[in-house]
Order: sequence, then structure tokens, then C-alpha cells
Amino acid sequence: MPTVTLKYLSFHPSIWPRMIGEVSRDAMPGSLVEVFGTQGTTFGWGLWNPKARMPLRMVSHRPEPIDESFFLDAIRNAAALRKEIFHLDDETDSYRCIHADADFLPGLVADKFADVMSLEVTTLAAWQRLDEWLPVIHESFGTKRTVIRVDAQLAQVEGIPSLTHPASENIRTVKIKEHGVTFEVDFQEGHKTGFFCDQRDNRKRFGELAKGRDVLDLCCYTGGFSVNAALAGAKEVTAVDLDETAIAMAKRNANLNGARVKFTHADAFTWIRTMIENGRQWDLVIADPPKFIFGPEDETGFGKYNDLNKLAVQLVKPGGIFVTCSCSGQLHADAFEKIVIGVSHRQSKRLQIIGRTGAGPDHPELSNYPESRYLKVLWNRVM
Amino acid sequence: MPTVTLKYLSFHPSIWPRMIGEVSRDAMPGSLVEVFGTQGTTFGWGLWNPKARMPLRMVSHRPEPIDESFFLDAIRNAAALRKEIFHLDDETDSYRCIHADADFLPGLVADKFADVMSLEVTTLAAWQRLDEWLPVIHESFGTKRTVIRVDAQLAQVEGIPSLTHPASENIRTVKIKEHGVTFEVDFQEGHKTGFFCDQRDNRKRFGELAKGRDVLDLCCYTGGFSVNAALAGAKEVTAVDLDETAIAMAKRNANLNGARVKFTHADAFTWIRTMIENGRQWDLVIADPPKFIFGPEDETGFGKYNDLNKLAVQLVKPGGIFVTCSCSGQLHADAFEKIVIGVSHRQSKRLQIIGRTGAGPDHPELSNYPESRYLKVLWNRVM
Repeated sequence: MPTVTLKYLSFHPSIWPRMIGEVSRDAMPGSLVEVFGTQGTTFGWGLWNPKARMPLRMVSHRPEPIDESFFLDAIRNAAALRKEIFHLDDETDSYRCIHADADFLPGLVADKFADVMSLEVTTLAAWQRLDEWLPVIHESFGTKRTVIRVDAQLAQVEGIPSLTHPASENIRTVKIKEHGVTFEVDFQEGHKTGFFCDQRDNRKRFGELAKGRDVLDLCCYTGGFSVNAALAGAKEVTAVDLDETAIAMAKRNANLNGARVKFTHADAFTWIRTMIENGRQWDLVIADPPKFIFGPEDETGFGKYNDLNKLAVQLVKPGGIFVTCSCSGQLHADAFEKIVIGVSHRQSKRLQIIGRTGAGPDHPELSNYPESRYLKVLWNRVM
Repeated sequence: MPTVTLKYLSFHPSIWPRMIGEVSRDAMPGSLVEVFGTQGTTFGWGLWNPKARMPLRMVSHRPEPIDESFFLDAIRNAAALRKEIFHLDDETDSYRCIHADADFLPGLVADKFADVMSLEVTTLAAWQRLDEWLPVIHESFGTKRTVIRVDAQLAQVEGIPSLTHPASENIRTVKIKEHGVTFEVDFQEGHKTGFFCDQRDNRKRFGELAKGRDVLDLCCYTGGFSVNAALAGAKEVTAVDLDETAIAMAKRNANLNGARVKFTHADAFTWIRTMIENGRQWDLVIADPPKFIFGPEDETGFGKYNDLNKLAVQLVKPGGIFVTCSCSGQLHADAFEKIVIGVSHRQSKRLQIIGRTGAGPDHPELSNYPESRYLKVLWNRVM
């Protein structure tokens, strides 16, 4: 087996170029390699690609040798977590099946949407193995059709030879069902699917709080929270987003379920300021903005969380509920809470913190990859 | 209204003696007082007791005057959170009704167990107001009977005149129902009730993972997790605790539900070591030890979390689930995770972190009282 020797040790799954020492001649781009530590003993096993930003992706830190069957076992282990341990099929036909490094399959994200397996490939090693992995993936998760997406920039860096995989089918949309609610997922080229499985449990919980309430959904995207609230018996649901395509999909989702939601196409910041001036307030408010922070020193991004929460909390009736989310991995959970608490206190509001949640169990985090924690949802009662 | 002037400002609900400046002559032990800041302007409102460890307990930081009706509103607000917002009555007849400062009622903890309201009084101010508050509490939560507990040491410090309140009834036990599971709560003098409502949602979630599995409950106490697992169809449930009284109550709880659990009276640490030697492993393991840490520099306590988790994680089958809890408020959530991850990594085990939970919404945390966060539950798959 080809070998790579490390100059410095790190138990992180991704190894930077500066940490790489000697590499055996037979280590080809995409090879499974044995990794030696500084003492020349086996440190673990990984996937090699010298051109990549992270040339080595570790998959095991144990001395026992692994071969290609390791990855097939990883697929089956990923299925066991979703199906046998968490019984996700009982509540939804759509969930994250493979969560890249956290399922020991670097470079591969796979979401099941009804009978469609939607894959995102970000490493050459994963691309090279797709023909071998795909049948096992479909068999393990009971899917039939395939959509494969490769980012053009990443493909260039990684040396992925094509942006279109022969197994990828031309599927436009598919209807999915989550906790009894129907959503349409749109695979149209160049767009994200418009559906994030990671908020599944939070959507359900949000719905359970909505009955008989005035509900506001800020940055509603394709309407997941709004539709759940309306179906759960909300008195009235108002949903705001700046993205016209998302609003159009949200309207389709509402119609599919016969849910009454008032959608508004507007910039949330401007719209909230107007509502504050008008003295409008809601019983239940959620803010689930897109990722705001793109680097550790992205002050603009941190500022946006501050501003959005400062504004949004003013739209909550006294004694009402404020649910606020951040999907920026660079924003630590504690730092996010500090922002939300800080803007509330400066307005003489106290929060009763009544829950902290994150992504569902189909989005595991790996213990040696703490940066993989990204979604934070803080549930508060505003007093 | 009597007044207290602060020498230093803090937005924390509890004010230390060294922060207290001038106090008006009419401020009596237990008085509701107006609190002035360093500039002589109104800083807020609080309850005063010069003899107490925390002589001032703030309940409002707003300039608007409050009177005794503030506390009656606080009781009704606490009921609205549990009943109108979270509909807790739909899933249980027992929950935390009043969570002291976090419900703006310093010195009063109230748990509803079926028709019994069990109160713990820790301040003179709360004691003095019990006759006024009790009818509103019973009316708001639909309870009929009363148990009142006062800690003897606290009573002396606070100047609470008696350990027995005339309203407190002599109730030995009551049967409660949580998510369809029956438990017996024992009010016998000098003992805790043996039932912690804070783990309600976690007990349910644990049960959902137990079907068809070998389950181990370490520090099982009165059997909440074990009984849920057995009723959910676990293949076999083993439960261990050092406390004989708790084990006896756990057995009663299992019998009440016709649940088959193998209870073992043993020290968890010793018992686990034997099991490791015997090579025994389980599919699903929970460790929910009593509070281990009693101060910020309680190294023994920190060490116990390290040791228990180091041992317990070895009892989880590869690919199985490890649920680990800490109810020590002095142990920060991140620090707890670091302990659990550290002991796992040193054994070449990786964790897929699949959930982080805490106490239910009937145990809110107050945003200006971060120390009130105590219960951390980390859900992991051991790989």
C-alpha cells in the first residue's frame, strides 16, 4: 500500500500540506494510503490527493490495516445510524444519508429525497469510487434514482475529470414527506435543492408551539417553518425572504399542503424596521438566516447576527417565543448565545432560555472535527 | 417603598453583601425594595433580607414600579409557559411549575406531582408570601394538595421562623404518569422526592433508541431511563446504583409498569471495571450520575466525570450509543464534552455526536443568570 509520512501529528481528519513529509512513489491522486507518524510507526489510514487543499483526509487512526471495504462498511454503518438506531424512515422519506468525514466518507455528502439519492462530491477520491459505492448506497437506503453534483471550482482543484457523472439522472423535482408535511425539492441545475434536512426536528418542534398563535418566519427560505406552523393551527403566519426563487418554492410548498401563509418578498432588516415603527408584534417569531460568517474574522458577518437579533427580538410580544438560528460554523454556540442575550439585555428584555437544539442525528459531528458543529438553534421566551 | 442603593452594578439576579450601599430604615427582612444605582436613579426592584447570603434578589431591572402583584403575575406567567405554550399537561401530570429566579420568584421551587404541589422554600421573602401565593399557584396549575419543604440550615441563615408550614400536608407517596409511564413519588420526610422532571424529554428519547437493544443504565437512581427502555421493547435492561433506597424505588417503578429490569446494587466504578474484565458490552449505555462537582476548584469532582466516562465508554459495543449526563452547574457544557471526547480518543474511539440536550422547558434558564444552566446530556455513537 502507498504510504505518507507526517511531519507533525494531528488527529483532525483533514491534514494540511505543511504537515506532509515523505510520500511513496506509488501514492497516486485518490489513493488509499497508510500514514506513518513521526516515529515511523503506523499513525492511521487516509485518502491522498497531492493537488487538493487538504492533501490527506484521514479515515482511521487505528493501527489495524484497512482496505477499500472500509468505505463500504462506512456506508452500511451510516445507514444503520439513520435506519436501525433512529428509525428515521418512520418520520420522513428524506434525510442526510452520508455526512462526509463524520460518516468516515470524506468528500461525499448524500441526501435521500424520497427515491432520489442526491450526492455532492468534493474530493477526487470519492469521485473515483462512485461506481463502487453507488450500488451499496442505493441498496442500504432503498433509493432508486441518482443525482450527482460537483462544484466546478472544486473539480479543478481536486482534478475531478468531469462535472457530470454518467450515473447522474436528469431529475427536475421530487415531492417528499417529512412528519406528514409535503415539500417539493427542486434539483434544477445550478441551484441548491432548497431543502435542508438538518432542521427537520426543529420544524416539528416549532409547529408544536404555533397552535392558536400569530407566527412570524424571518428568512423563511422555502417555507419549512411557516408551513409547519400553519398546518399545526397557527392563527396567522407571516413569512419574509429576500430570495424570490425561494419565496416561489415556499408558496408551492404552502399550496401543496393547503397551508395559509402570507409570504412577503423583502429584505428582512428593512422590513423588520418598518414593523417596529408600526408597533407590530407576534406571539412566535423565528429567524433562520442564511450563513452570515465566512471566516474567523468576518466582522460583517458577526455584525449581521447582532443586527438581525436586535431587530427580531423587538417583534416578539412580551411572554412570547423567539427562536433564533445560526448555521455559521465559525460562530461558536456560546458566542451566538452572547449575541442574542446581549441585544436583548440592552433593550431591558430578559430571556427565559427554554431549549438549545441543533441539526438532527442524520448530521452527526465527529469528535475529532469540532468545526463540524454548525447549526445552533436557541429557543427563548422574551420577558 | 423601602430602598436599597448599590455600590456596584450587576445585572445578575443575586446581589452580594459587598455590593450593597445605603439601605432605608423601613427595609425589613423580606421587604420588596426599590433599588437605586450608583447615580441615584432607579436600577430596578428586588427582595431584601440583610441576613441572607445574598441579601438582595433582583426581580426587575426596569424603571417601572412594581408591587406585590408582580409575583402573582409571575406565577401566572410560569403557568402560561408550561400549559399554554408547551402544553405539558398533554404528556405528563408532573412538571416543574416554578423555577425560582428563572420564573422571577426567587426562593421558590415548585414541582407538580399529579394533584400535589411540592414546594421548596429557600428565602424568607418567599416564606412570608406563601399564604398569598399558594391559592394562585393551586389555581394556576390545578393542584389540590400541598407539601412544603424548608432546609434547616437555610432557614437559620434566612431567618425563616419554622421548618413546618401550616399549609403543608402529610403526604407519603403519590403516583404520577409521564409519557404514559407510571412512577411513584415518595415525599417521606428528609428524602428528596426521588423524581427529577428535568430529564423527562431525555427519558422519552432514550426509550425510542432502546427497542431490540441490550441496554445499560449506570447510576439508575429511581429507574426513569431503565423503565422507559424496558417498556419501549429493549431486549434486556441492566441498571446499577449504589443507593439502596433508590434501587428499592426503582424496583417499585419497574413493577408498577410491568417492566423487566435487572437491578444491581453496586458502586458503578467497581462494577464497570468487572464488566470490562469480563468483556461485556451493551448496545445502548447511559450514565446519569449524581452531581459530582461542588465548587469551581473541586478537582475530585472533575476527576469523577473523567473516570466514569473513561470506564463507561468501554462498555459500549462498536457502533452503539453512549448517552452521558452531567448535572453539575460548575461544569461548563464545552468542558464536559472535552472530558467525554478526551477519554474516548485516548482509547482510539471516535464519537459521532448525534445530540446535545438539557433540561426540559419547565426548567428555563434566565439569560442574566448563566450559572442556572446545569443539566447537559451528550448523545454519542461510539465508533
